[in-house]
Amino acid sequence: MEDLLQSAATRTTAMLDALLPPSSGGAKTLYDAMRYSALNGGKRIRPFLVLTTAALFDVPETQALRVAAAVEMIHCYSLIHDDLPAMDNSDVRRGAPTCHKQFTEATAILAGDALLTLAFAALADPATHPDATVRCTLITHLAKAAGGAGMIAGQMLDMAGEKQTLPVADITTLHRLKTGALIRFSCVAGAMLAGKATDDALEKYGDALGLLFQLTDDLLDVEGDTTLTGKPQGQDALAEKASMVNALGISAAKKQADVLRDKAIAALGGFGDRKKHLESLVHFVRYRIK
Amino acid sequence: MEDLLQSAATRTTAMLDALLPPSSGGAKTLYDAMRYSALNGGKRIRPFLVLTTAALFDVPETQALRVAAAVEMIHCYSLIHDDLPAMDNSDVRRGAPTCHKQFTEATAILAGDALLTLAFAALADPATHPDATVRCTLITHLAKAAGGAGMIAGQMLDMAGEKQTLPVADITTLHRLKTGALIRFSCVAGAMLAGKATDDALEKYGDALGLLFQLTDDLLDVEGDTTLTGKPQGQDALAEKASMVNALGISAAKKQADVLRDKAIAALGGFGDRKKHLESLVHFVRYRIK
Repeated sequence: MEDLLQSAATRTTAMLDALLPPSSGGAKTLYDAMRYSALNGGKRIRPFLVLTTAALFDVPETQALRVAAAVEMIHCYSLIHDDLPAMDNSDVRRGAPTCHKQFTEATAILAGDALLTLAFAALADPATHPDATVRCTLITHLAKAAGGAGMIAGQMLDMAGEKQTLPVADITTLHRLKTGALIRFSCVAGAMLAGKATDDALEKYGDALGLLFQLTDDLLDVEGDTTLTGKPQGQDALAEKASMVNALGISAAKKQADVLRDKAIAALGGFGDRKKHLESLVHFVRYRIK
Repeated sequence: MEDLLQSAATRTTAMLDALLPPSSGGAKTLYDAMRYSALNGGKRIRPFLVLTTAALFDVPETQALRVAAAVEMIHCYSLIHDDLPAMDNSDVRRGAPTCHKQFTEATAILAGDALLTLAFAALADPATHPDATVRCTLITHLAKAAGGAGMIAGQMLDMAGEKQTLPVADITTLHRLKTGALIRFSCVAGAMLAGKATDDALEKYGDALGLLFQLTDDLLDVEGDTTLTGKPQGQDALAEKASMVNALGISAAKKQADVLRDKAIAALGGFGDRKKHLESLVHFVRYRIK
């Protein structure tokens, strides 16, 4: 599974490199900051999901890679802005200084804005799909997943939930928005590239996987090895973030992770042999150590 | 002219009100901040340009209003982010507290992000134009105008130019990016809604008007009445911003404004009687007092 993820990551990084502005010109520092944050690794789970679900429908790889890169631009912009002093105030990300520490706060804000904008430019380009209706469908759903009723609402709830004891249902809502929305989009994007409006099974898979991903993130914050995760341990506790581990305890959180793992795998029932990479990803996320 | 601008502003504000999320739900504060910054007035010059150029091509008003609202969302997001402490650190905008003063810095960053995202969602919706190719053309050009090679590059150059004496050519480049790109887009959006790739005359008009707008902005910063402009006088000088008035002196800056006024009007030559509102806007911008 590590190999599959690594291969998807390499291909996505190459596409990102091609789509990002070159490091030159009057606004070179801006482009350097965009490249710093978008090309510095990360697991590229979302690109893997786009590429793998697109392959289920025999979508040409170049099209899928452009969508994968667009989703990753949105993901990277959200990390840059979430790390800012006014938000989570994080100095380290993926084992390196966060964008505002490496550059300046102003540059980090603008690099995030530019990545967000570039994601939509990448999708609107005819190279993403010859049918403009498909491109608009992708833009509509990505904007919904990433916007004020999706990921950004999740970040608001996350900040509002600090120093509070949220009920499990509220934490689930928060996770569905903050992490889940973009993961769900990544899972149905392949179907959209094949001309479908969505795909119920992949939507369910993405929902369970997104919740599982955030739950294991909460577990790693408590139990993870900081040399592997690339970020200091106990950050959530320090910021008194709403966390499934706090709400349920470690043992029950692990049981809930198993439930979500099984749900995600069950959703794939109709895909026959082609589902095996998506299945492997579920196990990888359940037992991830970084 | 004031009446025409007011009428366009009222119709655009109604469309923004319909497109923005209602003030309710778990992320209510986010939506309140978006509405606070997008609905609190402003001259709505860009929406006026979209509506007026769309009328040249007999584009249905509802379509033009959606594009006008999208452009204004981008403009408002850029003001929110530019006003942040890490950038221009402005407390007052349009005579009222800036978004981060009224809410928090984190909320202001996210409200800007959400407005930027919503602009693309608004354009991608079939209600904007029945032909998805037209919608994608609008998205491509708006993303280019607003992104890392357009407006955002302009803000980077603006910050880099502080405490420096920039040559007139560099200030012109800065203005073309920071203010000009979005104004040029607003001028050609009407042609795009009529199915054209662009319109050279309107592009030239928008270029001259954009430079004129920024030049009169620089003049107002020196000579304007703060009760009319809604922002403190001398902010540019205080921040040692690159300014055409500093580079040329007040008298030469005013002569340059006349040159740009004449250029903008000359570009409209081919439009016959229908150009009169666009002409009036040039005079309004040249002699504006706020």
